[in-house]
Amino acid sequence: GTGADNDLHINQAIVFIEDAIQYRSINHRVDSKSLWLYRWYYSRTCQWILSLTITIILALVFIEKPSSLTITSDVRFRLPAWNPPCGLTESIELLCFLVFMLDVSVKSYLIGWEEFWKNKWLMAYILTLIVSLTDWIVSLSLFCAEDVRIRRILRPFFLLQNSSMMKKTLKSINSTLPEMASVVLLLAVHLSLFTMFAMLLFARTKDGQQEKEWVRYFRNLPDSLTSLLVLLTTANNPDVMIPAYSKNRAYSIFFILFTVLGNLFLMNLLTAIIYNQFRGYLLKSVQSSLFRRRLGIRAAFEVLSSLKETPADAQQSYVSVGALLRVLQKVEMDSRCKQAIMRSLKTCSCDQLSAAQFQKLFEELDRDAIKQHPPSPEYQSHFMQKMQIAFGHPYFGYLGNVVALANIISICVVLVMDADKQPSERDDFFLGAINCFFILYYMLEMLLKILAMGLKRYLSYPSNRFDGLLTVILLVLEIATFSVYGFPHPGWRPEFMGLLSLWDMVRLVNMLIVFRFLRIIPNMKFMALVVTTLLDLVKNLRAFAGILVVVFYTFAITGIMLFKGAVVPLGNTRLQFFIFLFLFQTFFYIKKVEVCYFKEKCDFMALFGHFQAEVIYCLLYLLPINLICRWAKIYFVAWWLISSVIWVNLFVALLLENFIHKWDRRCHREPLSDIEYQRTVELMFRDVLEEPTEEELMEKLHQHPHLQLCR
Amino acid sequence: GTGADNDLHINQAIVFIEDAIQYRSINHRVDSKSLWLYRWYYSRTCQWILSLTITIILALVFIEKPSSLTITSDVRFRLPAWNPPCGLTESIELLCFLVFMLDVSVKSYLIGWEEFWKNKWLMAYILTLIVSLTDWIVSLSLFCAEDVRIRRILRPFFLLQNSSMMKKTLKSINSTLPEMASVVLLLAVHLSLFTMFAMLLFARTKDGQQEKEWVRYFRNLPDSLTSLLVLLTTANNPDVMIPAYSKNRAYSIFFILFTVLGNLFLMNLLTAIIYNQFRGYLLKSVQSSLFRRRLGIRAAFEVLSSLKETPADAQQSYVSVGALLRVLQKVEMDSRCKQAIMRSLKTCSCDQLSAAQFQKLFEELDRDAIKQHPPSPEYQSHFMQKMQIAFGHPYFGYLGNVVALANIISICVVLVMDADKQPSERDDFFLGAINCFFILYYMLEMLLKILAMGLKRYLSYPSNRFDGLLTVILLVLEIATFSVYGFPHPGWRPEFMGLLSLWDMVRLVNMLIVFRFLRIIPNMKFMALVVTTLLDLVKNLRAFAGILVVVFYTFAITGIMLFKGAVVPLGNTRLQFFIFLFLFQTFFYIKKVEVCYFKEKCDFMALFGHFQAEVIYCLLYLLPINLICRWAKIYFVAWWLISSVIWVNLFVALLLENFIHKWDRRCHREPLSDIEYQRTVELMFRDVLEEPTEEELMEKLHQHPHLQLCR
Repeated sequence: GTGADNDLHINQAIVFIEDAIQYRSINHRVDSKSLWLYRWYYSRTCQWILSLTITIILALVFIEKPSSLTITSDVRFRLPAWNPPCGLTESIELLCFLVFMLDVSVKSYLIGWEEFWKNKWLMAYILTLIVSLTDWIVSLSLFCAEDVRIRRILRPFFLLQNSSMMKKTLKSINSTLPEMASVVLLLAVHLSLFTMFAMLLFARTKDGQQEKEWVRYFRNLPDSLTSLLVLLTTANNPDVMIPAYSKNRAYSIFFILFTVLGNLFLMNLLTAIIYNQFRGYLLKSVQSSLFRRRLGIRAAFEVLSSLKETPADAQQSYVSVGALLRVLQKVEMDSRCKQAIMRSLKTCSCDQLSAAQFQKLFEELDRDAIKQHPPSPEYQSHFMQKMQIAFGHPYFGYLGNVVALANIISICVVLVMDADKQPSERDDFFLGAINCFFILYYMLEMLLKILAMGLKRYLSYPSNRFDGLLTVILLVLEIATFSVYGFPHPGWRPEFMGLLSLWDMVRLVNMLIVFRFLRIIPNMKFMALVVTTLLDLVKNLRAFAGILVVVFYTFAITGIMLFKGAVVPLGNTRLQFFIFLFLFQTFFYIKKVEVCYFKEKCDFMALFGHFQAEVIYCLLYLLPINLICRWAKIYFVAWWLISSVIWVNLFVALLLENFIHKWDRRCHREPLSDIEYQRTVELMFRDVLEEPTEEELMEKLHQHPHLQLCR
Repeated sequence: GTGADNDLHINQAIVFIEDAIQYRSINHRVDSKSLWLYRWYYSRTCQWILSLTITIILALVFIEKPSSLTITSDVRFRLPAWNPPCGLTESIELLCFLVFMLDVSVKSYLIGWEEFWKNKWLMAYILTLIVSLTDWIVSLSLFCAEDVRIRRILRPFFLLQNSSMMKKTLKSINSTLPEMASVVLLLAVHLSLFTMFAMLLFARTKDGQQEKEWVRYFRNLPDSLTSLLVLLTTANNPDVMIPAYSKNRAYSIFFILFTVLGNLFLMNLLTAIIYNQFRGYLLKSVQSSLFRRRLGIRAAFEVLSSLKETPADAQQSYVSVGALLRVLQKVEMDSRCKQAIMRSLKTCSCDQLSAAQFQKLFEELDRDAIKQHPPSPEYQSHFMQKMQIAFGHPYFGYLGNVVALANIISICVVLVMDADKQPSERDDFFLGAINCFFILYYMLEMLLKILAMGLKRYLSYPSNRFDGLLTVILLVLEIATFSVYGFPHPGWRPEFMGLLSLWDMVRLVNMLIVFRFLRIIPNMKFMALVVTTLLDLVKNLRAFAGILVVVFYTFAITGIMLFKGAVVPLGNTRLQFFIFLFLFQTFFYIKKVEVCYFKEKCDFMALFGHFQAEVIYCLLYLLPINLICRWAKIYFVAWWLISSVIWVNLFVALLLENFIHKWDRRCHREPLSDIEYQRTVELMFRDVLEEPTEEELMEKLHQHPHLQLCR
């Protein structure tokens, strides 16, 4: 009937608008049941469950067999880790797989059969699930005693396929690959030519000094290649040239030439290329997001205009305001946007909306969120009004900063004075007394500010929230300290009582005070700019971080599998080394390991004496096995290329992009200091984005696989 | 008289045009004698003498007392260096000072008294000369036994003040300093807050493991600050966190947070800021160069228009073509430009030139130099024509590349096979034979190409010049080898004869063959782009390199003076270490020294056993002296900041700028592959430069301190 048709159209409009808000594609089924399923699938609960499942399956690695979390990393003191029984992690895995199967079937159903065949991500998803399940069955049938677990390497894929932003970023990176490959090829040519040169230059002779260079670094082709490759990472930097340099200073020219060409020119060229290429692709992806948004809005307009209640017009289609209001009430969106749209609908006196008006109405979505702070309370008493002026004045805030600085300096002085004292000689009286005084001041400052601004206005500033929260924590800690250890007095050195010793309590308080000092940031213009840029960057960086996690995870698991046999002497539990190496020590921290590894002539026992960490333990047993060595070399080179060359350059490109945009806009923004903007990567490019034309939108709409438009 | 006046005007015009060509300021005296002096001063001979003097005074350091060039850097094998007698270097210095005094007096006279007081560079020049001379007198009166030689630190100033491009670059860097200082301040805040945190976190306890962290890295404030500063340079990367990490993995969070914030964010922010700021200033300086050029041309026009032979016109001033031709004949400029201007003067049928026409005529100067290759010879014989087609075809060049690649591969195979052979077992027959064959082919290729293209056309291509030169050298070497050692035969291992052994000859030939392989570069599109970008960069980088030399030199000399007392045990000659450290080992190579230095816990004897180089020798005697230690710390930190933070970032900024401009323009240029462009930094920005208006030019001309314009 007409009513059912109308309801369907209203529902379609709701879904299309929600698609537009979330930058989703509108190419899904549009019948009543599918729409219900679609809204259910994209509801917060469902998506939250999906994210939780992904987190769980990724986190499983921490309790699975070759790895387990322990507090110390020192193998000598470590207790044997808890080994989950066979079947525990596997049953959790099965649950996750079931969720993923549900996910993939709903997704496949919703986009329809024809679209399914075009969607490579979905196909890969299904393939991954099939492989994982097969591997799972094999694993269970061998009672968890199998060596290779392919499904672990595949796990990060579940994270990847669930985020459209990550998929987009991956696409961008993928398009940059040919250019990057060219530079890497250039690097390879550079490396191989210099290797040949080096082998000819440092050939074996009867001369003792030159012989040393040959023996250590240029004995044969793989050695020479490795030496120069490591020189490119600057890890073995002066060492490699010292024997030759000792013989004749002129030999250093070879190494300087290699380093300047390779490190200074080619490596930075990579930065330039990635910056140049990536810039365009980021813009492109934002442009396509905008197109999706406009398309969703337009689709909503089209379905609403075909409602029976609207009078048919031969020239132009219209949407009644009533229908739009009905849609808006049911759409899930930011309440600020919704209210703004409602408001402009009311101010517009017209009864019918054209496509342009409709589109214009929803431009509110693209706008920066402007945050208005609630007003201060109005006091009747003259005294209170004066108080309000005094303590609401920025100078009072500056005074607070000065006091915080004084506190920091006093802590610093005490630290310097106490630096060499034995724990038993230490007297906590002075620190305890001054901290007590300062914390009282902080409390007073907070209360006076709340008095002057009112609680709501006070809490609406992030800096105040940060300040207040820390002050409250400090106060609680101080009260707890006094209730356990009494008030400070000279020679305040009580015995250990309760959860923490007095010394630990004082240290904790001091750390929080140092942390609280960060409240000065908004008061310094340049610092505030830098910090907001960094915060924006972090927002835009989520997709990157996700891809980094995927790469880390894959590398860690591959490492475990590759080097399993190599670490047998110490038992399988040592394998967790690789996970921690990659997951916690980040790519900066691997450098030293690479150095040790590549050199192969590290004095391991000396290092062992120094570090006493499993890193060396592991390497100790890793190195002697020759076959593994070669794999390890390739593995480390790949790791170096991906993590410290490509990823860091991508990061620099993103930072440059973000910062230069922000910097250029600094002047326009300064006067509006009371208004805070929330910017996303979409908003950053708004000035350069092109609006899609009506023809493009309609052409795309007519290509929709499930929606039959009347005209 | 009128004739003398006319001659003066003609001379003025000549000098103004030469000023415009060289982007020089026109604010100098314009009377006849001064003009003669001005042209003499800026003549090639004079400028060449000045450059030579600067080179000599800078190079003096290599033979002066605490330093002297020796072949080996190993102190144990080194012969005592030649010590010039007192008075030798000093008299060379005096000669240089005399040249500089002449230079400064001519310069001061030419710009005139009023301008002189405004010119800070000239004042600084005179001051430097006075200080240097005083120091020189003190030095001689003490018979060269003085400890401190201030004049050595001042020497790089002579290099700096002589290059206008370097002065400009320095100005740009100077304008970037406030922004850089903000980031450095931010880094300092970051460092100090984290230091306090670290001191609280890793305080002395009774726990053995945590105590280790405290003892080694966070004993007191300077220690903690140093540990974290070095972590910022990533030099002590995992070491610093290993003891704490061994105790509890969670401690790594502190270090990761510090590194990510400091290294990944703040350091890259510095890159972004320098890129952003510097971009603008480079453009600005190029804009001011353009203004100088236009101003010079306009000034020439004005003086020529006031010639008596020109009919006076109330509305507009004109210049006769004849006068301009007279001027052009005497102007020293690129002959290509001169011919082009003459040609357009002839095609222009008019007798008088307006200001705009005059300006337009000289726009030839801004144009890219287009290089046309001479034509191939035309042969009569049918056979020769066919030969010409065959060997002039690009495929013949490709065949040459393939043969060169085959040669490289064969050398590589022999190297791999011979890698472990003793020098006495080695048989040079195989390599000798194949190289003989390949070099014959190279000669044939060269001759056939010359036949096909004619000698002139062949030599007009840089790749052919490179190719031909190497082929001739290879041929000469091969002939020399055969004439000394006879033709190759199995078991070709003759005794040492002549200058080089057979093995050295073969190695030299092989190296040249590897080097010759670079001829493939122009054949690979992306490689060619990269290489031309790099070559352009090198051109634009001269000013940067100059400033780097100035910084290196100053640091090296300061190092010598600062650490003189510290190295007494080994004698003063060890001090040359610092010069070589900075002049030859460049900033990359210093990293390891910094590591050793900052750690202060290096096992020096172990390192000594490894390196046996003076670097360690020096540090061995440097470290125990505490006062020196602190100076050294500040010195190294300053060095790190300037060389590896600021300079590298400036370099990256310049590279980004160059590359992105080039990349964007790649598409336009591709079809014209036979035409080569010579681009400078001025031409790179041409599209974005603004032409100065007539009013600006005239206003500037009326402000000229020596030129009185009629109107």
